[in-house]
Amino acid sequence: MNNLDKIMKPKSVAVIGASTKPKTIGSEIMQRLRDYKFNGNIYPVNPKGGIIEGFQAYTSINEVPGEVDLALIVVNAKFVLDTIDQCHQKGIKGLCIITAGFKETGAQGAQMEKELLAKVKEYGMRCVGPNCLGVLNTHPNISMDATFAESLPVRGDIGFVSQSGALGGGILNILKDLNVGFAQFISIGNQADVNAETALEYWENDDDVKQILLYMESIQNPANFRKLATRISKKKPIVALKAGRSAAGASAASSHTGSLAGADKAANALLAQSGVIREYSLKNLFATAKVFSNCPIPKGDRVAIITNSGGPGIMATDAICEYGLQMAKITDATKDKLRSFLPSAASVKNPIDMIASAPIEHYQQTLETVIADENVDMIVVIYLPFLGLKDIDVARAVMEIKAKNPQKPVLGVFMTTSGFFSELSNMEVNMPFFMYAEEAAEGLHRLNQQRLWQNRPEGKIPSYNVNKARAEEIMKQSLKEGRAQLTTRESIDVLDAYGIRVCKSGFAVNVDEAISIGNSIGYPVVMKMTSKTTSHKTDVGGVRVNIQSAEQLRDEYNDLIQKLTEKGLIDGLEGVIIQEMVKGNREMVAGIATDPQYGPMMMFGLGGVFIEVMKDVTFRIAPLTDIDASEMIKSVKAYKLLEGARGTTPAQMEQIQETLLRLSQLVSDYPFIDELDINPLLISEKTGEGIAVDGRIKVRLEEACEKLGVSACSACAV
Amino acid sequence: MNNLDKIMKPKSVAVIGASTKPKTIGSEIMQRLRDYKFNGNIYPVNPKGGIIEGFQAYTSINEVPGEVDLALIVVNAKFVLDTIDQCHQKGIKGLCIITAGFKETGAQGAQMEKELLAKVKEYGMRCVGPNCLGVLNTHPNISMDATFAESLPVRGDIGFVSQSGALGGGILNILKDLNVGFAQFISIGNQADVNAETALEYWENDDDVKQILLYMESIQNPANFRKLATRISKKKPIVALKAGRSAAGASAASSHTGSLAGADKAANALLAQSGVIREYSLKNLFATAKVFSNCPIPKGDRVAIITNSGGPGIMATDAICEYGLQMAKITDATKDKLRSFLPSAASVKNPIDMIASAPIEHYQQTLETVIADENVDMIVVIYLPFLGLKDIDVARAVMEIKAKNPQKPVLGVFMTTSGFFSELSNMEVNMPFFMYAEEAAEGLHRLNQQRLWQNRPEGKIPSYNVNKARAEEIMKQSLKEGRAQLTTRESIDVLDAYGIRVCKSGFAVNVDEAISIGNSIGYPVVMKMTSKTTSHKTDVGGVRVNIQSAEQLRDEYNDLIQKLTEKGLIDGLEGVIIQEMVKGNREMVAGIATDPQYGPMMMFGLGGVFIEVMKDVTFRIAPLTDIDASEMIKSVKAYKLLEGARGTTPAQMEQIQETLLRLSQLVSDYPFIDELDINPLLISEKTGEGIAVDGRIKVRLEEACEKLGVSACSACAV
Repeated sequence: MNNLDKIMKPKSVAVIGASTKPKTIGSEIMQRLRDYKFNGNIYPVNPKGGIIEGFQAYTSINEVPGEVDLALIVVNAKFVLDTIDQCHQKGIKGLCIITAGFKETGAQGAQMEKELLAKVKEYGMRCVGPNCLGVLNTHPNISMDATFAESLPVRGDIGFVSQSGALGGGILNILKDLNVGFAQFISIGNQADVNAETALEYWENDDDVKQILLYMESIQNPANFRKLATRISKKKPIVALKAGRSAAGASAASSHTGSLAGADKAANALLAQSGVIREYSLKNLFATAKVFSNCPIPKGDRVAIITNSGGPGIMATDAICEYGLQMAKITDATKDKLRSFLPSAASVKNPIDMIASAPIEHYQQTLETVIADENVDMIVVIYLPFLGLKDIDVARAVMEIKAKNPQKPVLGVFMTTSGFFSELSNMEVNMPFFMYAEEAAEGLHRLNQQRLWQNRPEGKIPSYNVNKARAEEIMKQSLKEGRAQLTTRESIDVLDAYGIRVCKSGFAVNVDEAISIGNSIGYPVVMKMTSKTTSHKTDVGGVRVNIQSAEQLRDEYNDLIQKLTEKGLIDGLEGVIIQEMVKGNREMVAGIATDPQYGPMMMFGLGGVFIEVMKDVTFRIAPLTDIDASEMIKSVKAYKLLEGARGTTPAQMEQIQETLLRLSQLVSDYPFIDELDINPLLISEKTGEGIAVDGRIKVRLEEACEKLGVSACSACAV
Repeated sequence: MNNLDKIMKPKSVAVIGASTKPKTIGSEIMQRLRDYKFNGNIYPVNPKGGIIEGFQAYTSINEVPGEVDLALIVVNAKFVLDTIDQCHQKGIKGLCIITAGFKETGAQGAQMEKELLAKVKEYGMRCVGPNCLGVLNTHPNISMDATFAESLPVRGDIGFVSQSGALGGGILNILKDLNVGFAQFISIGNQADVNAETALEYWENDDDVKQILLYMESIQNPANFRKLATRISKKKPIVALKAGRSAAGASAASSHTGSLAGADKAANALLAQSGVIREYSLKNLFATAKVFSNCPIPKGDRVAIITNSGGPGIMATDAICEYGLQMAKITDATKDKLRSFLPSAASVKNPIDMIASAPIEHYQQTLETVIADENVDMIVVIYLPFLGLKDIDVARAVMEIKAKNPQKPVLGVFMTTSGFFSELSNMEVNMPFFMYAEEAAEGLHRLNQQRLWQNRPEGKIPSYNVNKARAEEIMKQSLKEGRAQLTTRESIDVLDAYGIRVCKSGFAVNVDEAISIGNSIGYPVVMKMTSKTTSHKTDVGGVRVNIQSAEQLRDEYNDLIQKLTEKGLIDGLEGVIIQEMVKGNREMVAGIATDPQYGPMMMFGLGGVFIEVMKDVTFRIAPLTDIDASEMIKSVKAYKLLEGARGTTPAQMEQIQETLLRLSQLVSDYPFIDELDINPLLISEKTGEGIAVDGRIKVRLEEACEKLGVSACSACAV
């Protein structure tokens, strides 16, 4: 027996704090349980006893004669802890604490919530809330509405988790209004115990829940969420609205990767990697739910449009193309068949325009014919009011054909009045209807997205042979000197130790050493200063490229020393790195940023001067699978450049993918790496390799010292 | 008297083809005129005479006793031309031809439409249609519904032009349903005479029309449309839905500029330059209309949110920030005042959260207080259902405050059921209400867009002194040789003649000449082949950069000759251009593309290898004003690079702007220029100038020969 069953599928519920006083939660929840005809025993508990909403009330939970699966707790916050003790004495294992006044009110409430959770754990209970709207299960065997939302739910196939109680109630109202039904609903509130992850796991194998909707303001355990969602979204769509994206706690971070990240990018990456469909408005969340409730997952992305008016057909085509879906190529056989009954003025090319006079039979025959076409995966049926036809009759006729052909998604676009949609909301429907073409196109897009995700291989997290000893030695040296920021040389060496292709180089502290290294690498070379105090080298003229000879190297070196001296920056100078000059005009960037909530994130995209301006970068939560890495590379616009646009050498995609995976391994081995930039990761025009030409690594000092056993760190000692 | 008055403000109308047969247009239109209580004489004309919808019918238009301003023609297409003659004899100056069967049916219909237009012109008439839904004017003095749409219109302030008859009817239904009212409506149909431009001009000074809505599938005369819309949109908002954007007749164009353009970019540019707000879905078109109908144009972009629930407040903030609007900084005085009546748990920081228990009085007091705050330009009021409050009561209360404070836009977000919105649609409202926060944010964005447009200076089209004689001489030479594509050298020379900063260069046909030029420019130089047969030089190794000395130049030259010989491309070689090597890593592109419908378009954006991949380019229709040019530069993402991001030299913005304006002058002088690319327009790291390093010009041969008086062109002669 799964451990939420006592809460979500109880045989008996006690309402502790039930009340006869109107407009109180203790009264509303009793009414809801009664009106929705809970299929089990209802025990109101109130110190005064009596009859509440027609049920015998008990003065304490101990008085209740039968066994109780679920206690719905609505008493004042100060009584909640005692109530839990009493529930334990009664042998109750399921709690839903609606009462507010805990963590959300400040430190004292948070302490009380901590004690609450301790009791729940100690007693082996599960607990929804506190500070929530309640729970709901529409299955006829259960039939429980234990919420105080305004309206009774419609039966459906959605499992819905809401973090906000008030908004959850609003959403329940709107969904009822839209005739979108639920299987189960959990208002997790402060999520002291049960959270979105618990719900996901609980619904994974529950066939009554066919899709999962989430309203979230935060994700409690990102790694666990990712693991669960990745697995479960393969079985049923998970659609999430994550609010608070502009509130990005984006304190000016010191590196590029940091400043480009920000909390919402992390959430976005996590959801994308986990196969969760992210919506940005409630409106779209509902629309997508409606589509998944009424459509099978399609076999492909080829869309046919059936319309009785050209204009909406054009608008639907526009929207479908913009989502990257294909306009289906109708087969000749289908065209012939359509011509056999449609008037000559009709167009049998996709979009199929049956013209304004199309009677209901044409809608039926055309749809039936098009559904059968093997080149068609999804269908949009458009109706614009025409003298003599009734919209609802057309809808019924279309649904009749759909009922006989359930294998492909069919979406209706009925550009008519709200009266039509009100009428629909009181009917059984077997396909989604929208007012506007763009809404249907978004629905098709979501269906296709779920199809692609279900077909996507799971991927593996590879493990490469790397030189950990060397990497640690380098980092330890930095730590011992109290430096969180590794020097360029150290950074590049750590990358090298992890098998990342870095450009050939050597370190010199005087001009003769520099020339000796230059001679051994071969010209042209690049000279870069390394400094303990200056992090953006180009800004101070610390990078000299295309040095063609030993003589030129000598000149540049001397010039650098002079410039730094003039600027008073000479003291930080450690020396210069002499590097092979890799030719290529495609500068990418790969890196690591740490999100305070989601942990290490991988970054990849267009680098160089374009990084902040074009923001053509993508993020994923570490660790990466090979599929994640491959998708990262493909998802940036600059991918076409990597493929070899404009006569450039095609990049070695597998080598670049491996670079990302090795970086991911690095940060998994050393999670104290706070920021890492390879910028540029230059694509060699000669070989197509991605070569780390410059790198920066920054660690979290205390954490790093602890992990690597460095005790003499001056900074930590402060 | 403006010349559409006979059609839009008639004192008398004749319905020629009026009918008693139900469900015919001749019957429907009579009913509509009667039911909407047309404020003038209605004369049905039908060969059978009799009484039609209660009016005396006449057997011919000549029989009609009184004067007739407007003839509504619904007779069969084959009788239309004769009918027009009869209308002329009767002295009628206004026609609305609803009858279909003209241009839209093919060549024969098009011929008939041509004759129709000739008669209209000859007789000094104005004509709406043919193939249209009719016209409508809700002003009480007129009260004319001369359409056959399903429902009678709601009185309002919108002037609406629809190109599609069927869709126009659908739109009328939906707007009625949404309670969005019209002043006037013109279904232009085939727009033989009256088109969107006529309507714009007609409504320019009609105070009854406060905003103009357009549904367009094409723009008839882009230059005229631009002229009118630019002027009129300063006085009242013009909002357009332009369909058919994916159908971009994008045959693979040969240049970058061409391939990046495509028909929809031209439409987009035209609308943006003309101050027309473009919507991409009917849904948004209606939403925007609703906002403009009920809101003044704000004074700034600072938004305050008032809510009774945190979640929707966060979602609204997210959406508002994403549109680039500002969250208002509430003054301390306002905060104090709010604290004086709101409970302590409320948040008086923007978004202002009155918490769930907020009674109606708090809505009123809070709104009143916030409207008065000088730091607030626009306000969103959010309501989430709460036990005990009725949504419609809250709405009424809010509208009461709004009525007393009409100076600032106030938008409602009521996350409640459709019942609320149905109820609203039967009420007088003084502010727009939406279900979702994102819809309100879009509305705020549109208001702000209109504000910015109204404040935008008109701009001037400057005229520079240029060397036309030299430009023409160069182009003539190319034409005489039958070349539509000028060589690189010619292209650069034309740009130079037009005062565009090109990089110093000379042309050489052998290695000694090359070295002589190199020596005079000074090293480093760049060598570029010029060829009559090979247009993408880099693909064949025809560009050699950073040549440091005469010796190196010799080597590179010899190597090029060898490579071309190997590839069999040596025959096309004209010689090489030796150019100053401009240092800079910011490569922009400027150019001209020609849209078959909209004419020459200017392009500006990020160039180099990124051009096709990043697509960070913007378009405007030529000729450019200085404001257009300045906006073009600012509207690309790479603008930050130009400003000097990452330690680069700030670009000379005025010089770049002048480059665009000079290009615009060039194509205005020589409209036969089909394509022009300056790629790259390199930003000099030394001076910040934009320097044309490479250029390509292609002309339309026949047109160019004719304009420049070149008769001996071999290609044209073929």
